[in-house]
Amino acid sequence: MEKAMSDFVYYNPVKVLFGRNKISELGALIPDGKKVLITYGGGSVKRFGTLDRVKEALHSHIVGEFGGIEANPTYSTCMEAVERFKEGRYDYLLAVGGGSVIDATKFIAAAIAFDGDPKDIFGQGVGKGLPVESAVPFGSVLTLPATASEMNETSVITFKEEKAKISFSSRHVFPEFSILEPELTYTLPKRQLANGITDAFVHVIEQYLTYPVNGMVQDEFAEGLLRVLIEIGPDVVDEDNHDYALRANYMWTATLALNRLISRGVPGDWSTHGLGHEITVLNNTDHARSLSAILPAVMVVRKLKKWDKLVQYAEKVWGITEGTEEAKIDAAILKTVAFFKSIGMPTNLSDVGVDEADIDTLVRQLKDHGNEAISERGDQTLDVSCEIYQKALDLNF
Amino acid sequence: MEKAMSDFVYYNPVKVLFGRNKISELGALIPDGKKVLITYGGGSVKRFGTLDRVKEALHSHIVGEFGGIEANPTYSTCMEAVERFKEGRYDYLLAVGGGSVIDATKFIAAAIAFDGDPKDIFGQGVGKGLPVESAVPFGSVLTLPATASEMNETSVITFKEEKAKISFSSRHVFPEFSILEPELTYTLPKRQLANGITDAFVHVIEQYLTYPVNGMVQDEFAEGLLRVLIEIGPDVVDEDNHDYALRANYMWTATLALNRLISRGVPGDWSTHGLGHEITVLNNTDHARSLSAILPAVMVVRKLKKWDKLVQYAEKVWGITEGTEEAKIDAAILKTVAFFKSIGMPTNLSDVGVDEADIDTLVRQLKDHGNEAISERGDQTLDVSCEIYQKALDLNF
Repeated sequence: MEKAMSDFVYYNPVKVLFGRNKISELGALIPDGKKVLITYGGGSVKRFGTLDRVKEALHSHIVGEFGGIEANPTYSTCMEAVERFKEGRYDYLLAVGGGSVIDATKFIAAAIAFDGDPKDIFGQGVGKGLPVESAVPFGSVLTLPATASEMNETSVITFKEEKAKISFSSRHVFPEFSILEPELTYTLPKRQLANGITDAFVHVIEQYLTYPVNGMVQDEFAEGLLRVLIEIGPDVVDEDNHDYALRANYMWTATLALNRLISRGVPGDWSTHGLGHEITVLNNTDHARSLSAILPAVMVVRKLKKWDKLVQYAEKVWGITEGTEEAKIDAAILKTVAFFKSIGMPTNLSDVGVDEADIDTLVRQLKDHGNEAISERGDQTLDVSCEIYQKALDLNF
Repeated sequence: MEKAMSDFVYYNPVKVLFGRNKISELGALIPDGKKVLITYGGGSVKRFGTLDRVKEALHSHIVGEFGGIEANPTYSTCMEAVERFKEGRYDYLLAVGGGSVIDATKFIAAAIAFDGDPKDIFGQGVGKGLPVESAVPFGSVLTLPATASEMNETSVITFKEEKAKISFSSRHVFPEFSILEPELTYTLPKRQLANGITDAFVHVIEQYLTYPVNGMVQDEFAEGLLRVLIEIGPDVVDEDNHDYALRANYMWTATLALNRLISRGVPGDWSTHGLGHEITVLNNTDHARSLSAILPAVMVVRKLKKWDKLVQYAEKVWGITEGTEEAKIDAAILKTVAFFKSIGMPTNLSDVGVDEADIDTLVRQLKDHGNEAISERGDQTLDVSCEIYQKALDLNF
């Protein structure tokens, strides 16, 4: 074999409790005597009774609440939670929500324990990018399968003033445990289900659609996750279809899409996320909708760079075996677009409210956030990113 | 979807360091001041310089050695190591070897900390099957990819007098870290390489070839692992082929085959292991050779019980799409046998020195070890196991 996977470390100590009524085990998961601050988002966990179930399970613990975490959680909201935690002399955090709430809770946990200005946990023009040396322990109850934040050590926080979405990672912000109840997805509206499927899909793509290094298992696993998402996607977005097995597959697939397993030893791209983040910062487009609006253009513009993996993607994921390599690639791109459309996702920048005049702003934001040389080879310059934005506006499949 | 995966817990805190020269990082992985007892097997780690590299990396630690752990590690040898550890006032264990050394070290770690007779850690007629509440911390340096013991919490120990191979599992015996250097496989002889490929293959089969529960990702991952093993197997067993990428795929695949990921939420069989263990106890047949000698007969005798998954196995793993379901199954069984033969593994009981007169003994041993109702449904009685042994003797592909 010509190329080989690179060296890697795999470490993921998150304890996942998956299945029915796992919230009832919360009392045993959080050490006795801990005072727990429960973090959550916009109130759906109240409306649908999840918060009550959590509090009932923690009836032997002292608990407090911090609600109102946004879909793209902001630094300032998180810092309010830090204050609440310190004032209330809490000593454990419990995130009840989707990726935004869990991401926010990771930062809150790190910020509470941080010696210095918590902004310095972030780099990319916002802070000094200092390492996180410790964090308050926390667990999560997942309500929206999408980001896999429940089983990784990364958090993305939005800085309103700086117009930036910036991530940090630390082994100290793995959740101690995450509760995955597929039935919690039954109350999700179609838009969030479609976002979740798309987010998971693009996560796998970012770790797969690069260049081949003979990471055979990594490729097999990535292709398997993509095939599952493609197969279940259209059924999952039917919000009235409360098939437990279906939702269980959705939930576990989304977690495995970004628990770091498939990325070990192989290159990663993340340019679709990089370009998508700037759209969300610009006009608050849902994270996943920014991704589906950008990915087809990435595939078209970066076709030559991703050639071998695009052929493999066509053959293994979409079962396209006829025609030239280029014909396979083009067919696979069309299939990808059709898949997004089938679950109601945008596939073009105009679908997410971006027009010609915005492109300069998006590119300038990329530059401000230090994204001048991204993608798996670091060769996606601002010019190339500009071309991708332009293509994402022009493409009309 | 008709059936759904069952509830599960996934927890695997092992830190895997994978790649070139990772042994050099040992000094930083084991806390300063720990006195380390290095456990190993028959001397190949000395002959090929691995032990020297380990000791060089631990030059700032005080280390001792315990060699001579057998291929099927015995209780009595492990208890000698327990004595050595206590007498020498060690406080950390480092396993340098394959699955046997790591399995032994897990038991040694548990036995040292066990309050009572360590035999009671085992059930199945040997002891009381008491839970392990703590263990001495340990790490591993893997030299033979096969068992995945480096990334799970299970150990199999042989009891000579009782003629038994018995396992125990405990979250306290996960290695703290495991070092995976693909280059360490370059000194392995063909027989051990073939054993490793086969052991990993049968591990996946035991977690896959049961009945379908719509564990879509679990199935995709299992099928991917099997396809990789089938593709690389013949090249891996060429002991002179020191292709790094090839050996890296072999090593990572064997670990993922039994790090518990693919078994979550789906049924497991383990009857091939159960029946194979008795052969090893009877005549010391290599563990993997006992498996390849039994598995084809399991597929034949249990065809009706495993029908749906056998069809899926034929289609997804072997790409057999023509013919009736039964024709596909039969073709897949033949392919499995041909695969084992291609890497020099036995596929019949007579190949491993078992004859007609031994079958009663094997069945009696199964009974003595409490294996009267095994397999994914617990419906493999001793009569069925006897039929499988008989079939494994008669089959001549």
